[in-house]
Amino acid sequence: MSEQSNNKSINVGVIGAGGRMGRMLIEAVQNNPQTTLKAAIERQGSSLVGADAGEVAAIGHLNVQIVDDLAAVINDIDVLIDFSLPDATEKNMQVCAEHNVAMVIGTTGFNEQQERVLAKASEKITIVYAGNYSTGVNLSLKLLGMAAKAFGNDADVEIIEAHHKHKIDAPSGTAYMMAEAVAEARGQNLKDVAIYGREGQTGERESGTIGIHAVRGGEIVGDHTVMFIADGEVVEITHRARARMTFAAGAVRAATWVVEQEVGQYNMQDVLGLSD
Amino acid sequence: MSEQSNNKSINVGVIGAGGRMGRMLIEAVQNNPQTTLKAAIERQGSSLVGADAGEVAAIGHLNVQIVDDLAAVINDIDVLIDFSLPDATEKNMQVCAEHNVAMVIGTTGFNEQQERVLAKASEKITIVYAGNYSTGVNLSLKLLGMAAKAFGNDADVEIIEAHHKHKIDAPSGTAYMMAEAVAEARGQNLKDVAIYGREGQTGERESGTIGIHAVRGGEIVGDHTVMFIADGEVVEITHRARARMTFAAGAVRAATWVVEQEVGQYNMQDVLGLSD
Amino acid sequence: MSEQSNNKSINVGVIGAGGRMGRMLIEAVQNNPQTTLKAAIERQGSSLVGADAGEVAAIGHLNVQIVDDLAAVINDIDVLIDFSLPDATEKNMQVCAEHNVAMVIGTTGFNEQQERVLAKASEKITIVYAGNYSTGVNLSLKLLGMAAKAFGNDADVEIIEAHHKHKIDAPSGTAYMMAEAVAEARGQNLKDVAIYGREGQTGERESGTIGIHAVRGGEIVGDHTVMFIADGEVVEITHRARARMTFAAGAVRAATWVVEQEVGQYNMQDVLGLSD
Amino acid sequence: MSEQSNNKSINVGVIGAGGRMGRMLIEAVQNNPQTTLKAAIERQGSSLVGADAGEVAAIGHLNVQIVDDLAAVINDIDVLIDFSLPDATEKNMQVCAEHNVAMVIGTTGFNEQQERVLAKASEKITIVYAGNYSTGVNLSLKLLGMAAKAFGNDADVEIIEAHHKHKIDAPSGTAYMMAEAVAEARGQNLKDVAIYGREGQTGERESGTIGIHAVRGGEIVGDHTVMFIADGEVVEITHRARARMTFAAGAVRAATWVVEQEVGQYNMQDVLGLSD
Repeated sequence: MSEQSNNKSINVGVIGAGGRMGRMLIEAVQNNPQTTLKAAIERQGSSLVGADAGEVAAIGHLNVQIVDDLAAVINDIDVLIDFSLPDATEKNMQVCAEHNVAMVIGTTGFNEQQERVLAKASEKITIVYAGNYSTGVNLSLKLLGMAAKAFGNDADVEIIEAHHKHKIDAPSGTAYMMAEAVAEARGQNLKDVAIYGREGQTGERESGTIGIHAVRGGEIVGDHTVMFIADGEVVEITHRARARMTFAAGAVRAATWVVEQEVGQYNMQDVLGLSD
Repeated sequence: MSEQSNNKSINVGVIGAGGRMGRMLIEAVQNNPQTTLKAAIERQGSSLVGADAGEVAAIGHLNVQIVDDLAAVINDIDVLIDFSLPDATEKNMQVCAEHNVAMVIGTTGFNEQQERVLAKASEKITIVYAGNYSTGVNLSLKLLGMAAKAFGNDADVEIIEAHHKHKIDAPSGTAYMMAEAVAEARGQNLKDVAIYGREGQTGERESGTIGIHAVRGGEIVGDHTVMFIADGEVVEITHRARARMTFAAGAVRAATWVVEQEVGQYNMQDVLGLSD
Repeated sequence: MSEQSNNKSINVGVIGAGGRMGRMLIEAVQNNPQTTLKAAIERQGSSLVGADAGEVAAIGHLNVQIVDDLAAVINDIDVLIDFSLPDATEKNMQVCAEHNVAMVIGTTGFNEQQERVLAKASEKITIVYAGNYSTGVNLSLKLLGMAAKAFGNDADVEIIEAHHKHKIDAPSGTAYMMAEAVAEARGQNLKDVAIYGREGQTGERESGTIGIHAVRGGEIVGDHTVMFIADGEVVEITHRARARMTFAAGAVRAATWVVEQEVGQYNMQDVLGLSD
Repeated sequence: MSEQSNNKSINVGVIGAGGRMGRMLIEAVQNNPQTTLKAAIERQGSSLVGADAGEVAAIGHLNVQIVDDLAAVINDIDVLIDFSLPDATEKNMQVCAEHNVAMVIGTTGFNEQQERVLAKASEKITIVYAGNYSTGVNLSLKLLGMAAKAFGNDADVEIIEAHHKHKIDAPSGTAYMMAEAVAEARGQNLKDVAIYGREGQTGERESGTIGIHAVRGGEIVGDHTVMFIADGEVVEITHRARARMTFAAGAVRAATWVVEQEVGQYNMQDVLGLSD
């Protein structure tokens, strides 16, 4: 790994450096052998402005002082990672577009005006914009589609997800995405085939249905298993997440990818080479 | 293993040698290093009478011809394994009691008269009589009780069972037994705390509940996982069954145990040393 | 499924109907909604010639008598499934080519002469020829390649396989195929990166290695799990096989596919739509 | 749970409040419905003396100022939790013994003199002293012994542990403890039966051996699975740990238990009701 360590060639800035996601992003930037933190930005008035970004993230001194003005550090970075709020991201896109700095955006909830700013910025700079930066989730969705096609009607599909006891809805959004990936690959409408729990005289399992089971307990961050159960064999695809670091590491990976792309807007499937 | 092979000291007879369970039992007798098949019995009129029991079971020639009269072979055996029907077992108990041959009985559905015959036979010979001969299931129930007590309210309990697509009810009887083992250890009534499936706005998980999820698909013989999900850790106890061989091997194990016990009636917990 | 049940349009013959694999194939033909058993062939001199193929397979009377001459029944079938020995398969290929009957071949160990017969037969009829007919194994290999590419160096790969206690070598051939699929996707030579077991002062895990662990016990037919362990998440791809039925069902699936293809030779990836 | 919430009756002090384990303990005290943090102690000279213990632990203001003198706050607490260093714990035991305050000690590495101080303190106060405070690990060890006895020679035992890529030795200490629990229950010496990895022409599995497999990758905190593989069934006991919170929560549970015991020294098996 020493070669890679010497090759920390991509300079990264992080928005919201004092927030939970920002701290994760800073740690992920440090963990990635290709990236170096060069800028850390917080909102004006934050008591953390002036502090060292590494100390705030509890990963040791990094010699990067948190600032409250993106423009002041924009020339130090190749790519800006922004998981913040729509209004802030809107302004940051304009600054990046002006200075030809690439972006990795995880902010959600853009309004139409903000979508237009995004579209316009994408004409000038390269932007990755995705709702979920987990390599594993994006990969799993792709694999599920392939498995569903390969098994066709020969396998019964059942999904088991597990989350912490505080989660107030079920199944998880990711479980739905996975079920939809299977249904779509089989030409089904998920609403017609989803089964949530079984009790009593259920009769034999109806072919083509998709069972979805939501386990709840403790502090489980998020596990998902999709089972393809054929008569003679079973294939299982399982994804286990650990806290937000999953998404932070994916965003940093996107940052290493985006700096080498042509101007335009991309999603996480593009980053992972899964779009075809 | 050579020592054990020389030590095939327990002679076993199997009732219903041509049926699916009988064939399994014969294979299990051969697999167990302590037991030898010495008698194989079928009902009068079966076309398999006269055939070699090993060939019928597809495990090679055993030099044991299938007969239709238990009395003709009763003196060749130390213990009789009987997984058949109540009327047949009733007569077999009488023959065994007369000849001081131990029994391992897996027949279910005795009527009162047959229960009396069983009780009376138990005064003369040693009998193991159980509804489930699986070592693993009996063991798991014991472990679940201990785990439930050790965790108390610190763990959320969720049960996932999986069976073949032909099963017409849910959850499985074994899943209910497992859930009851947990509920009982926590001083709960299962009906008050069981949850079957979750969908929609469920709210936070209520402490003390037991989630039970029934997966259905393919030809799964029977898997059960009980999760004890504490905030900082998870303990899982999983049982996976393979066809009837599970129960056949348990019955043969009971056969090796019963020949050394005093006259009386025992169950599988006794055999496994789990009763206290 | 009722439509499919009415649509048992593909007539199948099975070679080696009295062997273990042949019996499985016959059961698989019956289980598949699109196929009907129309011919069952055994070698000359077998005591099973004349018996009913369904009874021999222990799945009930099928009205298909086992014969010892393929030519006598070749006109009754659309496709022949042959998992036998090279010499027998060589002759069967010639008979099928003459009568324009498709083939699904699982026989292994062809010599050069037999390979030529295969090639020549493939010019006249459609043949699927594969070393492994499991949908799940073929699918898993494909998924592993994709996962390895998507994660790149961001995930540590570990493989756990489990087989019965009688297996005399380790790791399994399938585990090697899976490890090679990962290594190839990452541009590695498996020999340079494979690690078999860890004990003592191992030091930190070296990036890019592939751990391969062989569990042995009981009668496990064959389980394989490949873990992609990234810092923030884990993706697992698991395959579990049940007896030979896995491969029998795959062969029957190939039989339903092959009858609709143009003349030529295909493999299981083709059948599953995984080749690209 | 409302009763318990109103019943925060046990007042707890935590040693080393600014360290990683101390912060975890403070969070665990807050999470436990029966305990309240009343004292937080750090070494003299720490820059955290005077800060709020909750803010330092990043769980919000708790109105408990960190102090550097245990004696100053000893009368505010019912039980002291001490996971620090032998010299510090030695002094703390003397303070607690003087003031009749119970202790939960996780400090390791006592010398003989310190062991004597512990023994003497145990004559005056109630102390729980354990090397591992995880409920799940202690429970699992107990279950493993029972399972090993119930299966006897009928099951092959294999252990799979998984830890992060930075771990420099293998297998884990916990895996060894688990293997020893199995070996001891079967009357074996672990050294005679342990197998670490399998490769090449291994021959059939030798009965009575214990396979131990060490998976390494990513940031896995610590997973352990022990498989009991019988011919017809498999029982698996799995433990998954999440960070140090596992041990912190166990220590707080011990704190709630110790205040109700008679004077003496106890271990975690006692706390969990697993000792017999």
